[in-house]
This record gives sequence, C-alpha cells and structure tokens, in this order.
Amino acid sequence: MLDPVLDRIDADLPLATDRLMALLRIPSISTDPAHAADCAAAADWLVQDLRDMGFDAARHDTPGRPMVLGHGGEGARHLLFYGHYDVQPVDPLHLWTHHPFAPRLEETPAGPVIRGRGASDDKGQLMTFVEACRAWIAVHGSLPARVTVFLEGEEESGSPSLVPFLEAQRDRLRADIALICDTDLFDRDTPAITTMLRGLVGEEVTITGPRMDLHSGMYGGAAVNPIRVLARILAGLHDDRGRVTLPGFYDGVDEIGSDLRSQWEALGFDERAFLGVAGLSHPAGEEGRSVLESIWARPTCEINGIVGGYTGEGFKTVLPSRATAKVSFRLVGRQDPLAVREAFRTHVRAHLPPDCRAEFAEHGASPAAVMDISGDDFVRAREALSAEWPRPAAFTGSGGSIPVAGYFKTILGMDSMLIGFANDDDLIHSPNEKYDLRSFHKGIRSWARILHALTR
Amino acid sequence: MLDPVLDRIDADLPLATDRLMALLRIPSISTDPAHAADCAAAADWLVQDLRDMGFDAARHDTPGRPMVLGHGGEGARHLLFYGHYDVQPVDPLHLWTHHPFAPRLEETPAGPVIRGRGASDDKGQLMTFVEACRAWIAVHGSLPARVTVFLEGEEESGSPSLVPFLEAQRDRLRADIALICDTDLFDRDTPAITTMLRGLVGEEVTITGPRMDLHSGMYGGAAVNPIRVLARILAGLHDDRGRVTLPGFYDGVDEIGSDLRSQWEALGFDERAFLGVAGLSHPAGEEGRSVLESIWARPTCEINGIVGGYTGEGFKTVLPSRATAKVSFRLVGRQDPLAVREAFRTHVRAHLPPDCRAEFAEHGASPAAVMDISGDDFVRAREALSAEWPRPAAFTGSGGSIPVAGYFKTILGMDSMLIGFANDDDLIHSPNEKYDLRSFHKGIRSWARILHALTR
Repeated sequence: MLDPVLDRIDADLPLATDRLMALLRIPSISTDPAHAADCAAAADWLVQDLRDMGFDAARHDTPGRPMVLGHGGEGARHLLFYGHYDVQPVDPLHLWTHHPFAPRLEETPAGPVIRGRGASDDKGQLMTFVEACRAWIAVHGSLPARVTVFLEGEEESGSPSLVPFLEAQRDRLRADIALICDTDLFDRDTPAITTMLRGLVGEEVTITGPRMDLHSGMYGGAAVNPIRVLARILAGLHDDRGRVTLPGFYDGVDEIGSDLRSQWEALGFDERAFLGVAGLSHPAGEEGRSVLESIWARPTCEINGIVGGYTGEGFKTVLPSRATAKVSFRLVGRQDPLAVREAFRTHVRAHLPPDCRAEFAEHGASPAAVMDISGDDFVRAREALSAEWPRPAAFTGSGGSIPVAGYFKTILGMDSMLIGFANDDDLIHSPNEKYDLRSFHKGIRSWARILHALTR
Repeated sequence: MLDPVLDRIDADLPLATDRLMALLRIPSISTDPAHAADCAAAADWLVQDLRDMGFDAARHDTPGRPMVLGHGGEGARHLLFYGHYDVQPVDPLHLWTHHPFAPRLEETPAGPVIRGRGASDDKGQLMTFVEACRAWIAVHGSLPARVTVFLEGEEESGSPSLVPFLEAQRDRLRADIALICDTDLFDRDTPAITTMLRGLVGEEVTITGPRMDLHSGMYGGAAVNPIRVLARILAGLHDDRGRVTLPGFYDGVDEIGSDLRSQWEALGFDERAFLGVAGLSHPAGEEGRSVLESIWARPTCEINGIVGGYTGEGFKTVLPSRATAKVSFRLVGRQDPLAVREAFRTHVRAHLPPDCRAEFAEHGASPAAVMDISGDDFVRAREALSAEWPRPAAFTGSGGSIPVAGYFKTILGMDSMLIGFANDDDLIHSPNEKYDLRSFHKGIRSWARILHALTR
C-alpha cells in the first residue's frame, strides 16, 4: 500500500513544489486589514485545490479571516488535519534578499531551500499533508480513512474566530485524533511528536497612586510611589528557589514519568549550547530542574514588560502617577488558566497599599495540552516517522503555546499529534524565512507513512 | 536708618517695577543655545544696572552662560547675595494668555501681579535685593556693609559652570553669609527662611541578562529575566516600615531638635490638603514621621523611572535582554552623597544573579545643606521678616534641592539664608508665570530690613 505512494511522492515533488510556490505568492497577512482580500484569496486557492483532489471543501467566513474546511475519504477512522494559511507581516522589507511574496527555490550549502514568507510557517508545512493525501488518492483512488482538513487564517493574529468556530462546527470537526503540522524537528535528523504544550495566561497590571505626576523633591517621602509598589508586587511572585509563590499555582502540575524522563535524557540535549546562544551559562529556572524539564514540563511566571515614570535621556525627579507591567504565565499539566489569573490578581490586590489601585487587562488564557502518549496512534506514528528519518522519533514538549491543541482537547475532547518538519534556522517571523526542500519532501513522505500506520 | 529707606522703596515702586519689566523682556532661556545671546544681554543689563548704583560689576564668561559679579559697599560685614537671571523655556506657547517675554502688570482678584516668564523664578526675586540696595544707597549714599551680588545664568540648565566658577572665585565670593532669593513664602502671610535643603543623588542602573531578547515560550524558565532581577533589587531598597535598607544610609541623619519640632507643629501644616492635591490620603513615608518631617528632614529613595521589555499595546511574550531604572536619593543632614551612591551600587551588585551584569550612569550627587540657625544672623533676619509680614517668619525645610547652597557650604565654607517671596501659585516653569506685586514690594522692604538687621 505504502511504497507506490512514496514513489509517487518522489516523482511528483517538482509539481508539489510549484503548487506550494503558487500558494506562497498570495500575501495572506492576517493581522493587517489591508490584506483581508489576500487571505480570502489564499482560502479560495486551498478550497479549489482540495476540491481538485475530490474533497468536499468550502470557505467558511468569520468576523475575521475565513476558515477552510474539507472532507474526504471514508473508513472506520476519522483523522482531523490542522494547519494555517495566514502568515506574519514582512517588515522590515529591506532585510529580505528578494520579495517575500516572490518565493524562490535556492541552493544553499545545507541543500535546497524554498525561501519566502510562509514557506515554513505554515504554508509549506500544511502542504506536506495535502500533498500526501494527493499522492495517496492518485495511487489508490481514495484515502484510507475519513479525513477532515481544517485550515485557519488567523493563527498569526490571535485566532479570535477559532473558539466560536470550533463550537459551531463541533460535530464536523470531532475526529479520533488531530494531526497538527506547525512544529519543528527535534534536530535535522530527529523527528519529533510534541506531546506537551504549555498553556499561556497573559496579564497586564497598572498601578495608580497619585492622580498626576509629582515632583519627588516636593512629595518624595510623603506620596506613595507606584513603581515601588509594582516592584514589590513583582518581586513577590517568586521565592528564593525560583518557585512561583501564588497559592495553588502548582495545582495540576505533575512530575514527568520515568519513561519520558529517560527518553529526554537520551536526546542528549545540549543545555550549554542552548543557553550559550543567548550568551548565558546558568539555568535560571526552578532549583533542581534540568533546562529541558524547565521549558517543556514546568510552569513559569515571566515579566514581559514594565514601564513607569521618566524613561528618556538624562534624569527627571518625577514621582509618577502610574506604573504598568505585562506578566505571563506558562502553564503545564492540568493548571487552570482562570485560577492562575485570579491568584495573580489576588496577589496584586493583597499587596496594594492605601491610595493605590490596580487595573487589569487580560491578554489570553489557554490551558496546557498534554497528550496521552500511551495510545496506539502515538506508538504507530512514532514508528512511521522513525522509518522515514535517520534517527528515531522523540516525544517532546514545547515551551511555547499552540492554543489550538488545547482547544481541540477542551472543546472537542480530542488529542492532538503535533508533528512538524521545520528547522530552528527557518527564520519564521523574520526576514528571509525558508523551508528546507528536504523538510517538504520528507514531510510529505512522513504523512503518507502516518496515514498508512494509523489505518492499517 | 531704616524708615527713610522703606519710604523710598514705597515711592520708587513704579520705577522698580519698570526696571523689572525691562529685564523680563530679555528671553534669557539658558537651556536653549539659540538664546545664548539673550542670556549675555540679560547679564549685560544687570552689570549696567549694578554699575549705575555704584557697584564694581562685570560679566564673567564661562563655557556656558555668563556669571554676573558685582561688589559694592564697605564695612565690617560681608554679605553675598545670590540669584539667577536665566529662565525656563516657555513652551507650550499657546497656553500663555500673552507673550511670555512681553510682561504685563495685571489686576487679579488676589491683587496685582507681574506676569511673564521669569517674573517669579528668578528675575523678580533677584531684583528685590537689587532694589533694596538701590534704595539704601539713594538714602544713605552707601551700603551698610560689603555686599557682593552674584547672579548665575545656568540655574535652569543644571549649573554646569557653577562649581569651577566658585572654585576660581573663592576669595571674592567667600562672605560672612550668603543670602539666596529663590524660594517661597510658607504661605501668603508667613515668610520663611529655608534652613534645611535636601541633597540629591541620581542613579541609573541597567541590568543585562540574555544578549538579545528571547521568546518566553522557548526560554521562559531557563533564561534569567532582567526585569525580574531589577524588581527584586528595587523591592529590596525599603523595609516594611518604609526605611531605606542600604547599610549606613542613615549615617549623618540627625533627629530634628525639639525647638524646631514645636515651631513646625505651630505652622499648622495641613497634611490632608497637601496630600489631597495629589488625590492621596495616606502619608507613605517612614512609619511614625509626619509629612512635614518626611519631606523636609528625612532622606528618601525614590524610583523615578523604569522600563524593560515590551511596553506597547497588546502583548508580546518577550523575555527581554535588559531593564533599566532611574533611582534618586534625597539626602539630609551630613549624609555623604558618594557613600550613598556606593551603597546603592553595592546593593545592586550583591543581588545580581549569575549571567547578569549591571551598568550604572550617574546623574548628579549633591549633599544636603543644613544651616546653623543658632547664629545671630538667623535670629535677626527672622525678626526683620516678622516685622514686615502679617505673621512671624518660620524656619522651614525644603524637600527639593538647591545645589548652590550646598556648594556655598562645601566650597566656600559659608552658610546660606534662603529667603524668598514666591507663592506656590506662581506657575514657575509653567505657562502664565507671575509674581505678586505684593511679593515684589514687600520683598524689597524685607531685604532692606534684613540689611539693617544684619549690620546694626
């Protein structure tokens, strides 16, 4: 069943690359309203491509950018595939070696790459799955399972329409498992199935004291200083061992199992090199946790921004009226984002002196996603990937957040397998984004193997 | 001796007002190089006016704006008078009711005022002393003491030439006592001799951790966060009772004497009204200290500005490379500014985790000035002021810093009496600055009385 599909993929690679190039030429920047029509055009292009393969596909408009939904194949199993066709803005444009929406195939010392905005994130990745389906249909006439392709157009702009859409389309989207292609290889030769994704709570707090800026000569020592209040509140968020102090913060945080722990140890992750990239040499997380554990399996609290008073050149002896901080929490396991938000706000309020008030703005709250890797699908997908790539596939965590995986779990009750073929030098979100042709080719082959493995 | 001088002052008030108007018409903004020639013109105007009165006066050029120095009179006593002829910028110009350098005498419900930039700060104030000398000379033919008039042209722009000038002119400037006219009345009817001025140490600290901004998903929990480090350092500067924690910080801070304490209590300072202006109701200084004591006689540490990471709209999960704070210390008594600076830097360095470094920028360091009010001059000046104004004069402190008084003490070994007639509604540094004609008139009379009192 599989070998002729793989052969077909190899033979079709030039045409598959052309198709990706066509999609990359559409400047579907979702955050910029000036590109709304381009996003619709990218959605239409994908709908037509899915229809050409025999999918029952349609564009679904939302208050934001449209969703693409396509249904194809038949069988006992139902697989949902997710990717996103929208891309990041391209500025600064002058740093690109050629126009970001005039993609090119380029030879590099590390092999050929497809260069252009979205090549890796996420048009190149989503097309690996589409091309695997195309090859399978071409060889066998139909897919080996029921397959729903779900492509979002707002991933790079906060996915405002995602939750309502999932809720409205619950019945059509709920499958046995979701396949998400928006992540990296562990390294060039080691594929990865990301099974733990941290959640994210974003909070902004503004402390206001005096009703206007005061002169620190006149009022210093008499009037409350909101920067000082804020510093004290923020300093109180961690204890001396690097643990977050909010009551109940670690509720739902599990220790990782010994199997996973030994698998991670076997990956030979180079802490020194990882920190060295940032000019650092000491892990700064919780005492007694490895770097990999800290970023994949432990929750954090970070201050992402702070501002108050006079911040220009020179000095001004102002005693400011307000000070603001942006604080985020990365969540793991079963931590409840709303409980974390509430614990943070309670902490702030509990440390407010008289005459001060706190205002909060929320910037998202998504739970962590932890997949049940004991299931048959995870074992089979891992074997399938290991057959394609030089080294066996790893179950990894991810420090970042891919909210859709959390929503698939909470709204659709469905686990996700996050499998992607990007490299960490792909320059996603930056000028000169690229996708290795090898990622594209072996990515398509990987999905064919996984389709086979999950349905045989 | 005194009465005919006071009569002469009353009779000469219209002409004295005209002279002040002429000086106010010169736009001597010291911070703006475009007004350098205007500053020189104001200096020349003052030199000529002093010469007209018989002073041996001259303009002394500096790398910045010129100083004016005039010597007149003879006698056992030597008095130094200080004021400054430079003024603040005038923007925003559209908020002025008439051109800032076209001064006017205006009737207001509270009486006539002289309105224009510099009317109160400090041209109107410095002319009170000049006019008192003029009246004295007109009546008696000569001054009752050796008088040196020293007028600066850089007070509003940081006085960069002041210290070198004081050092170079030490012998000509050192007098028995300095009279500085650049402060306020305590209230409309209560004159004040400011005898305690806080010093000021300005420090800027930048904490650098990672060598570039990092993604908090990728590195959060592994890389040190400089905002968190900075918050902890700043939060550690005060204890729970509002005291500064730096070792040795309170060295040289004396409790105020019981005489001064009861005098301050008698002033009936309205803490509620003072804090109420800023929308506050709770004094936020050291526990157990009154507001007046906190701002006049206690040292402080304030955070005047802080910035780090992403501070724009929305949210960005950045783990920033650096964070910066501007911190100032108001000093009292015999606190050593350089020791305070060093204690602060030691505190910062002691709380730096691995992989972080701290860089410091200094923004001035001046000691407090505390006058010896037991001396005869202070007692006599206080009596003289009390004779002129409805209520007895008060010995007050000042939360702000008037560095020249500190330099007179440290460089010339000379105490200063800070006596001024400004009101707190004079709008100094703001549009529509004014000086009450009553301040000008009674100010001139006050100096005549003080000249008499100090030399009889």
